[in-house]
Amino acid sequence: MIRAMTDDYGYPHRHLLGIEGKHPWEIKALLDLADHYVEQSRSGSKKTEELRGRTIVNLFFENSTRTRTSFELAAQRLGADVINMGVSTSSVSKGETLIDTAVTLNAMHLDALVVRHGDSGAVQLLSEKVNCAVINAGDGSHEHPTQALLDALTIRRRKGHLDNLLVAICGDVLHSRVARSNIHLLNAMGARVRVIAPKTLLPTGIEELGVEAFTDMRQGLKDVDIVMMLRVQNERMTGSYIPSIREFFHFFGLDREKLALAKPDALIMHPGPMNRGVEIDSDVADDFERSVIREQVEMGVAVRMAVLDTLIRNAPNFAEGAA
Amino acid sequence: MIRAMTDDYGYPHRHLLGIEGKHPWEIKALLDLADHYVEQSRSGSKKTEELRGRTIVNLFFENSTRTRTSFELAAQRLGADVINMGVSTSSVSKGETLIDTAVTLNAMHLDALVVRHGDSGAVQLLSEKVNCAVINAGDGSHEHPTQALLDALTIRRRKGHLDNLLVAICGDVLHSRVARSNIHLLNAMGARVRVIAPKTLLPTGIEELGVEAFTDMRQGLKDVDIVMMLRVQNERMTGSYIPSIREFFHFFGLDREKLALAKPDALIMHPGPMNRGVEIDSDVADDFERSVIREQVEMGVAVRMAVLDTLIRNAPNFAEGAA
Amino acid sequence: MIRAMTDDYGYPHRHLLGIEGKHPWEIKALLDLADHYVEQSRSGSKKTEELRGRTIVNLFFENSTRTRTSFELAAQRLGADVINMGVSTSSVSKGETLIDTAVTLNAMHLDALVVRHGDSGAVQLLSEKVNCAVINAGDGSHEHPTQALLDALTIRRRKGHLDNLLVAICGDVLHSRVARSNIHLLNAMGARVRVIAPKTLLPTGIEELGVEAFTDMRQGLKDVDIVMMLRVQNERMTGSYIPSIREFFHFFGLDREKLALAKPDALIMHPGPMNRGVEIDSDVADDFERSVIREQVEMGVAVRMAVLDTLIRNAPNFAEGAA
Repeated sequence: MIRAMTDDYGYPHRHLLGIEGKHPWEIKALLDLADHYVEQSRSGSKKTEELRGRTIVNLFFENSTRTRTSFELAAQRLGADVINMGVSTSSVSKGETLIDTAVTLNAMHLDALVVRHGDSGAVQLLSEKVNCAVINAGDGSHEHPTQALLDALTIRRRKGHLDNLLVAICGDVLHSRVARSNIHLLNAMGARVRVIAPKTLLPTGIEELGVEAFTDMRQGLKDVDIVMMLRVQNERMTGSYIPSIREFFHFFGLDREKLALAKPDALIMHPGPMNRGVEIDSDVADDFERSVIREQVEMGVAVRMAVLDTLIRNAPNFAEGAA
Repeated sequence: MIRAMTDDYGYPHRHLLGIEGKHPWEIKALLDLADHYVEQSRSGSKKTEELRGRTIVNLFFENSTRTRTSFELAAQRLGADVINMGVSTSSVSKGETLIDTAVTLNAMHLDALVVRHGDSGAVQLLSEKVNCAVINAGDGSHEHPTQALLDALTIRRRKGHLDNLLVAICGDVLHSRVARSNIHLLNAMGARVRVIAPKTLLPTGIEELGVEAFTDMRQGLKDVDIVMMLRVQNERMTGSYIPSIREFFHFFGLDREKLALAKPDALIMHPGPMNRGVEIDSDVADDFERSVIREQVEMGVAVRMAVLDTLIRNAPNFAEGAA
Repeated sequence: MIRAMTDDYGYPHRHLLGIEGKHPWEIKALLDLADHYVEQSRSGSKKTEELRGRTIVNLFFENSTRTRTSFELAAQRLGADVINMGVSTSSVSKGETLIDTAVTLNAMHLDALVVRHGDSGAVQLLSEKVNCAVINAGDGSHEHPTQALLDALTIRRRKGHLDNLLVAICGDVLHSRVARSNIHLLNAMGARVRVIAPKTLLPTGIEELGVEAFTDMRQGLKDVDIVMMLRVQNERMTGSYIPSIREFFHFFGLDREKLALAKPDALIMHPGPMNRGVEIDSDVADDFERSVIREQVEMGVAVRMAVLDTLIRNAPNFAEGAA
């Protein structure tokens, strides 16, 4: 198996901060390892001891049950110890700086720090100050690399490949780190990407990322293989991006009528949690012939196992033995 | 040992949603297994590896340190991995439906989901959507089955049997899932049950559950073997059920004077947390000749070990091996 | 190795409530054991199975990510199971008394209870009601013994010894349990202690603890070996102890100019989290020739491993075997 996460000279990466700049072989190696973990979990023997004695901290400055739980499960299934630190219980409320929090944790001999933060770039900043592996679990509207990896694994298992697929990413593209990471990954793997959003939620210059932009769902969904819906993040909607929920659903919510424009075997995806009746209709969300929303969750744990496993084994002190 | 939690045809149950409808042999088998875990814990070798590699999620939509901690300890002592999800950190605050939360967790290959929810019936609804075992840790004013089991174990260890005992359940019967589960269990095991409450806290038609109802503590406590106090749940007291705390304590709080009407060796029980001076006087709460409140807590861990162990081993994928 | 934590007659202590009254040999034995754990962690084999099957509960009535995480890591690295109980999720919000909470937890067969509480003396009160080991993780303005132990370990590793060192403890001495525990420990080990604070933050009669008191940083820092800064605890500053942050920093904040009065190789310490620009200037906090703030964090985990290990092995039921 090709070793995932090495740079151009074969040196191992220490962190996973984003998908941008990753080589196809790196992505492929991670997906292959994740595939192995999917099979292992389905066979009933979910737990290994690969990372026994290792310590992973979930440092979440924004709430996210789903992602936090997924990383926690991934770590437990590799035999690692996990500590959860939510922002509300953190020293940050006592006025400590982000960097001091990270440096403090680092001094406790961690092996990996999984970080979610509201500011784009905060995770990278933090990664420069610590010895342990840092995994970006979502930073502002920048990147959410494990989401893009789990989406890719879900697609690859259903379609057999990623290259030459036509993928539409629909909804609040402007605020979406999920969109950004998926665009980088799908481009790297040879898929073609469209983004569909109301004009106010379409970043200017998005075409420079190598995507086609649409403001009309009916045009954008035409003949696509994958319909990837984004969550409307009410909590990020400062200002008046959207006239109303009702209007948004009418023009940009996925329902059976709009879906009919995609290919007959098009897959429906959503990173969750879903706002039913806002960006997606229950009718299509629960069509389990085509909706792969549950599989995305399952792939999430496997992908995070692959990332944790690879990065922690890449770390310099691995040779010294861990338990 | 007779296998606990099988239906009339010997098929294993997948869930524990309530006590209602359980057969005496099912209850007995669970209590016997719990007895085994009590002895094991007291001998100092608290931890086994029975559920190594298994994943249990505590999904609590209502706060409960006591019950959550008890399940967490039970899971740890069986060697399982546990993840805690409180409502405040959950996607529910992002608008996700209860069912979507459950289905998402289910996709992560859980073995058991321990659920507390404020609405009667919510846990059953959720159990119909998942593959893993679901354990009701209290739903609205419906049932709290592990509380009834731990109460029964406490009584059986002290009195040697459950049948023919006279048990008084006193206080806020109307809102109490603890009362309801205990009534079902004690009836099934051949005990006789009285409920004692002010008229406003006595559900209409309670006699149809096979209990005698009293509105006067002095009459109701006469000659009972067990005095089971209920917690006054101020948080559920919407409307004017109780004139005042002082008046409630005067008429329905357990003190030495009222206790004198019960049998001389009557046991005092309380599910905790206690409101001292509201439903129970410190004088009797701390009379450790007769108050078995601490033993109830100890039995709680053992009963939950028995339930988790039985249900998870009942699950179809057990044969495939877990570690 | 001399057994740590025994009384004058060689009987093992059950609890660690404070440093006051501890003998030099007890302190030395704990530091020696902690030293062993530092080396073990640095060698990459962080995890042992010393406390496999044991249960430790972190019961924190005040928030503290740093201390709670440090204890959690320490417990995990000894192979124990840990449960976190924050005050917000605790039954205390349902009106349960402190003692009932402790007695309830004790009934669950815990091995150690790590307690932080806002009231001086609360941890001792609680320790009298339970069978398990109790460790004071900070009570009011009384003691924070593991902080003093980790500070001592940090100093001893850098300076080679504790006796005859001149140590200045600076800042909010009045509210500081860290100051109190450090004074007891440093005195016991033969160091000389100065405290430096504005008059309003200097407890009356502090000299009776065997320290020299100063209200002028420039006088107090003269020729000291160790500069131990205290955190300004805004949350405890009820009343008008400090005229203003700016004025406080001017007179009592550590900057390069004031530091120049200490010995050239003086160490800079801070228990964290730091208020940069309030009690300490970033310029000196980040001078890693002399600032040992990160090492303090590392030593914290090792010291807590030593304390947990020693107290739990001291417990009577150890002989009966734990796994």
